[in-house]
Amino acid sequence: MSRFFTDELAALSPYTPGEQPKERKYIKLNTNESPFPPSPKAVEALTRAEIESLRLYSDPTCMSVCEAVAKRNGLRPEQVMAGNGSDENLAFALRAFCGRQKGVAFPDITYGFYPVWAKLFDIPAQEIPLAADFSLRVEDYVGLGRTIVIANPNAPTGKVLSPAQIETILRGNPDNVVIVDEAYVDFGAESCVPLISRYENLLVVQTFSKSRSLAGARLGFAMGNAELIADLNRVKFSLNPYNVNRLTLLLGAASMADEGYFAACTKKIQETREWTAQELARLGFELTDSKANFVFARTLKMPGKQVYEQLRERGILVRRWDSPRIADWLRISIGTMEDMQALAGAMTEILEG
Amino acid sequence: MSRFFTDELAALSPYTPGEQPKERKYIKLNTNESPFPPSPKAVEALTRAEIESLRLYSDPTCMSVCEAVAKRNGLRPEQVMAGNGSDENLAFALRAFCGRQKGVAFPDITYGFYPVWAKLFDIPAQEIPLAADFSLRVEDYVGLGRTIVIANPNAPTGKVLSPAQIETILRGNPDNVVIVDEAYVDFGAESCVPLISRYENLLVVQTFSKSRSLAGARLGFAMGNAELIADLNRVKFSLNPYNVNRLTLLLGAASMADEGYFAACTKKIQETREWTAQELARLGFELTDSKANFVFARTLKMPGKQVYEQLRERGILVRRWDSPRIADWLRISIGTMEDMQALAGAMTEILEG
Repeated sequence: MSRFFTDELAALSPYTPGEQPKERKYIKLNTNESPFPPSPKAVEALTRAEIESLRLYSDPTCMSVCEAVAKRNGLRPEQVMAGNGSDENLAFALRAFCGRQKGVAFPDITYGFYPVWAKLFDIPAQEIPLAADFSLRVEDYVGLGRTIVIANPNAPTGKVLSPAQIETILRGNPDNVVIVDEAYVDFGAESCVPLISRYENLLVVQTFSKSRSLAGARLGFAMGNAELIADLNRVKFSLNPYNVNRLTLLLGAASMADEGYFAACTKKIQETREWTAQELARLGFELTDSKANFVFARTLKMPGKQVYEQLRERGILVRRWDSPRIADWLRISIGTMEDMQALAGAMTEILEG
Repeated sequence: MSRFFTDELAALSPYTPGEQPKERKYIKLNTNESPFPPSPKAVEALTRAEIESLRLYSDPTCMSVCEAVAKRNGLRPEQVMAGNGSDENLAFALRAFCGRQKGVAFPDITYGFYPVWAKLFDIPAQEIPLAADFSLRVEDYVGLGRTIVIANPNAPTGKVLSPAQIETILRGNPDNVVIVDEAYVDFGAESCVPLISRYENLLVVQTFSKSRSLAGARLGFAMGNAELIADLNRVKFSLNPYNVNRLTLLLGAASMADEGYFAACTKKIQETREWTAQELARLGFELTDSKANFVFARTLKMPGKQVYEQLRERGILVRRWDSPRIADWLRISIGTMEDMQALAGAMTEILEG
């Protein structure tokens, strides 16, 4: 770092995104993208006239997207905030509801960005170990005196909590915000959105990146009671009010309204996930019960790093981490059936070839 | 604010963007947008195939844009960072180079976001008064012991410093970063980019929003020595790595390469600015010597608020502020010649009608 960099951030350890190599064409099963294009209705919304209108700023309130999200979820628009990806919404939420005196708690195995934001904002972080089978013990999250962030389904395990379990955590922390990161909720888990009307301390964050096939458009959204959303907007309007691209607002509103396409894509991914899980189990893999658009698997026949590398040599990218508890596990995104057949074939070669 | 909002940010006073009313069609001369569409080459880059590729994440390094910016400016790509609008780049720069122990200094009359970021990041801010004619006295900025932010041309005055004057400030603050916000530099001011090779403490921030007609695409960029840029990336990868939309990267690279269209648009705006300034002077307005895509003007015949309101009634939006030193001044964006003829006509009615 340069000699001008502030001491306050000397301990930063920036997030490492999944690799995006360009040297050859891979089957990309490493960043949980959708194998399907966005809704045709969204694609068609980007007319030449709209593209030319990029000369104008976007609506900083993102009202069209907030309205579409509100309508689908039985909320009012002021209960929704749109952001430049759910990463931005989550960061704003931690900035709004935590501080040097009010820490944050999350599982030891979860989305790797939570501790990064905690360091950036100087927030004391408590990592609570998951059980040996990666399940979250609800009783560990009662009366913590901290803001809580829970990914549900969790990443990278794909395991879910029921709304009733989340409710226990909400009731056990009435003076703290519980942020439920539902990035992967649309692939078979149950959303906590219906709890918003009953718990003023609940913030639910979702994204267009996975189930709406818009990872490259950068659009996420937070839902909660209007006061929490106003808090998020105070942070947003103090950092970057025009945070969402004009075309992205069009894409988001059109995509949220296309229920049929959404249902078809998410159903297909769930079916392909079940097929993939069966194939991997047949090859001797141990798997979590993932309700996300990925599976989480390990084999005892070979170290995870070696499986990862041999897949890479065969043109297939998956995701793995060095952290001890999950060093042998692979997170494998669900692509098309053809992608997953290629994966199963490569795994057969690697383990039985 | 909710009872969950952190005390640390209780003093926030979020930025107020220029109004974006929807109840009627206005001639919008209030947010410094370009009256021209983006480069046709940029528009054509958004093919249906590219729009469908939104299912994939964008390149978090924004390499295509960094390369295009580097090529045009005689820099290396590692001397450039792209962001979600120059607001984001400026925020990252203040976060990287300031702290509770290292304050920031900027003029009392300048872009209204600088003090907002200072509050968000808990950075002590020193506002240095401009002279009575809104000129910046270079000697006020020597040996400050703080990070310095200077908009050049300044907003909302449009007044410029020469690179030689900036150089005096750079030499006078060798242990502090000097951030030059060149959002408006392409309309007749001289850029400090050539100084980057000689001053390790210089960071220049520019944007695609004004001279490249891409306000709604959200794309800005910072240029400086590779170490400063790496510092900005440490902040970015700790907050929101996928900060730029995939389509925006295409638009940015294509737009930066289209020198002819850029030259034609910026020339036209300068000509229209000069025409507008003459018309307003003829009506008795006092004007600064603006080198931006706006003029800054006041009349002694009527309070600024009243002129603003009467323009609004006639369907023309301009920008004004309540702060005492500029309460009678109006910032008027340069639109098409037809827009400015309508403005001149309305002003004639208001002041002489």
